[in-house]
Amino acid sequence: MYYIGLLGLGTVATGTLEILSDPSGRNPLISEMIVKKIGVRSLEKTRTIQLSQELLTQDLDSIVIDPQIDIVVELLGGLEPARSLILKAINAGKHVVTANKAVIARYREEIYAAAQAKGVYVLIEGAVGGGIPIIKPLKQSLGSNRIQSIIGIVNGTTNYILSQMSDFGADFSEVLARAQQLGYAEADPSSDVDGLDAADKIAILASLSFGGHIKREDVYSEGISNITATDIDYARRLGYTIKLLAIARGNAGEDSDHLELRVHPTLVPQSHPLASIHGVNNAVLVEGDPLGRVMFYGPGAGSGPTASAVVSDIMNIVAILKSHGTGATLDPLLSRAHQHYCQITPIEEIKSSFYTRLITLDRPGAIGQIGTCFGEQNVSLQSLVQIGLKAGQAELVIVSHDVKEGLFRRALESVRQLEAIKDIPSVIRVLA
Amino acid sequence: MYYIGLLGLGTVATGTLEILSDPSGRNPLISEMIVKKIGVRSLEKTRTIQLSQELLTQDLDSIVIDPQIDIVVELLGGLEPARSLILKAINAGKHVVTANKAVIARYREEIYAAAQAKGVYVLIEGAVGGGIPIIKPLKQSLGSNRIQSIIGIVNGTTNYILSQMSDFGADFSEVLARAQQLGYAEADPSSDVDGLDAADKIAILASLSFGGHIKREDVYSEGISNITATDIDYARRLGYTIKLLAIARGNAGEDSDHLELRVHPTLVPQSHPLASIHGVNNAVLVEGDPLGRVMFYGPGAGSGPTASAVVSDIMNIVAILKSHGTGATLDPLLSRAHQHYCQITPIEEIKSSFYTRLITLDRPGAIGQIGTCFGEQNVSLQSLVQIGLKAGQAELVIVSHDVKEGLFRRALESVRQLEAIKDIPSVIRVLA
Repeated sequence: MYYIGLLGLGTVATGTLEILSDPSGRNPLISEMIVKKIGVRSLEKTRTIQLSQELLTQDLDSIVIDPQIDIVVELLGGLEPARSLILKAINAGKHVVTANKAVIARYREEIYAAAQAKGVYVLIEGAVGGGIPIIKPLKQSLGSNRIQSIIGIVNGTTNYILSQMSDFGADFSEVLARAQQLGYAEADPSSDVDGLDAADKIAILASLSFGGHIKREDVYSEGISNITATDIDYARRLGYTIKLLAIARGNAGEDSDHLELRVHPTLVPQSHPLASIHGVNNAVLVEGDPLGRVMFYGPGAGSGPTASAVVSDIMNIVAILKSHGTGATLDPLLSRAHQHYCQITPIEEIKSSFYTRLITLDRPGAIGQIGTCFGEQNVSLQSLVQIGLKAGQAELVIVSHDVKEGLFRRALESVRQLEAIKDIPSVIRVLA
Repeated sequence: MYYIGLLGLGTVATGTLEILSDPSGRNPLISEMIVKKIGVRSLEKTRTIQLSQELLTQDLDSIVIDPQIDIVVELLGGLEPARSLILKAINAGKHVVTANKAVIARYREEIYAAAQAKGVYVLIEGAVGGGIPIIKPLKQSLGSNRIQSIIGIVNGTTNYILSQMSDFGADFSEVLARAQQLGYAEADPSSDVDGLDAADKIAILASLSFGGHIKREDVYSEGISNITATDIDYARRLGYTIKLLAIARGNAGEDSDHLELRVHPTLVPQSHPLASIHGVNNAVLVEGDPLGRVMFYGPGAGSGPTASAVVSDIMNIVAILKSHGTGATLDPLLSRAHQHYCQITPIEEIKSSFYTRLITLDRPGAIGQIGTCFGEQNVSLQSLVQIGLKAGQAELVIVSHDVKEGLFRRALESVRQLEAIKDIPSVIRVLA
């Protein structure tokens, strides 16, 4: 039998216990797992799951050093005490399973170095994409490729909000309030709507795909709170849908020293596989050579799906503990560690096409002046369409060809100086 | 270094050699693989890849018993000599990687029993879904669930044909001829268009998901050669697209003794994730408890994608050989073997909704008689629509509610006896 210590008893931990306590019809390894201790903040809280009170303890440190425990499952969330407890568990020779993207995105190097030194595994399938298998496929199935890009819808809350805005023509704040009522968005939604959660996740996926550590602060991120129903409508007329994408793109694969890494709302062509991902679902599109494109799709959060990922990690560790012989070392695919940090290309240097919405005075020559401003910075345009006209003001939508962001921003600054320009409410990148 | 013997030098083998000979930017384990021998039918044939002539041999037996070779990669295709060579390699203590779905679907029990006895791995990621990681995710990531169903578009040729028929309103034979010119269909297309290739693949996926062997002859299969442009058009008007689906469905997971297992053309609701899988792409939708639905999507065939899967299997074996200690046994997730055979529910017992197209004489009371025939067998109908009328004949499309197939067929027999019925050109199952 293999003994598990659980840190935390929130929704994912409850889901994990539900799987472990009901092994029939699942992989037989689950019958060999025993939960020995569960670390909680409060012993009095009412739980949705029936548990022997003796399993619970408020002394989380005692779990991570318990000599009988083989695997510590960290489901506390947040940075501390999660980080310290993970490191203590590793130093006590425990294998670790965690769904904590915030800790892994920030302390991956420290945690993996400790794990390598101690010869233990730290598995993180639940940290990205909820129940979608994506971490292990990247480690074990896709490494034969030079990975060219990872593009993901990895935050269910923002995808739900954008889907609702798109389906009902509703505005951001209205849909956010409804999502909060339904429990799809937190009371403080900033980690989701500002793209920070997605940035944690793409840092983790990029690190696995491109073979280097990522400094979390190197991930450019922009949220969805400025997206309006108007932009979603105009985007649709142009053949696009708006998604919050997390993008990592490199050309040299493993040895890549230059990686694009960013989270921002993006116009996605309606025929693109990511355009049809609705509601709280997540999807990750991986492009590699010689593979081409594969996509992983499913429920990106929630108790059951994330618990499915957490238990699969525990199963993988148990399978190794059962089968490895004396003197075994860490499996190099499952424990993949990196020596160096990836170099991240500054956002100004990244080429994109840009959708821009401008409010102008309706006067002769305005369009010519705008065109000239872009031309002077060598920004060429795909289309320039006047959509509406009222009270002497016109609304223009401009889509550029691919151009370095720095150049585009300079051109936009000179456009903004034009007397005819009243406002530039939206600038959104377009997925090629 | 780890030595590989390759059996076959077709497109997938060539793709495999291309990856192995160009490791930069891929997982570093690839640099530790050396191809020692390649078994071919002809030494004289011109190859698209540059190779030392000394690597080639026509003596395939010598490869599978070569004491220096660690891993035999079987890419011959077909049943023999592939099956015998795989068994000889196992008996000589070699690990085996194969993309041969026909052999695995038919001889899985024999091959896995031999592999267990010898303590070697037989990995088959390339056998289903080309480059899409699906075999390892089922083994390593989804076993924490009770799998409820696997529904796949697992044959690229038929999906291409149906997509073209749908996009251009073209007929089956016309599109098949074009697919043959483009190399998307074989000169003898029966394995693809009759659903036999898809049946091999769903037998393999079901075995992994439901924890028992499958007798290949238990898989019901029906091909697409009777599908007409008319049915595709009528299906679209009803909100469906027609796909060749491979379906495995069980309720009790691991211990399931009753499994639905079938391949047939199916009306798929346009909003269903599988409806949007176009052209030669494949997709596999897995539904489990507590996971919910996840989908894996990508290129289902071709040299590069399948080679990506083959090399990933080699990587997994090398990773284990590098890290396991003395006295190691087989990893129970990666080597999962089964003791029993799954019981397959006869097709007559399976509940479906049915789309039926009938040609009737346009006479009063005909519809009433048809309705009565269905009613007498307790088949209730969702809809009955008269679509066309010419030369005194009407075309009716009937969609039933869910009903056991045997009952439905009996009702249809009594409908066929009605004097007003001229023909029943199409009966197609509908995905719920």
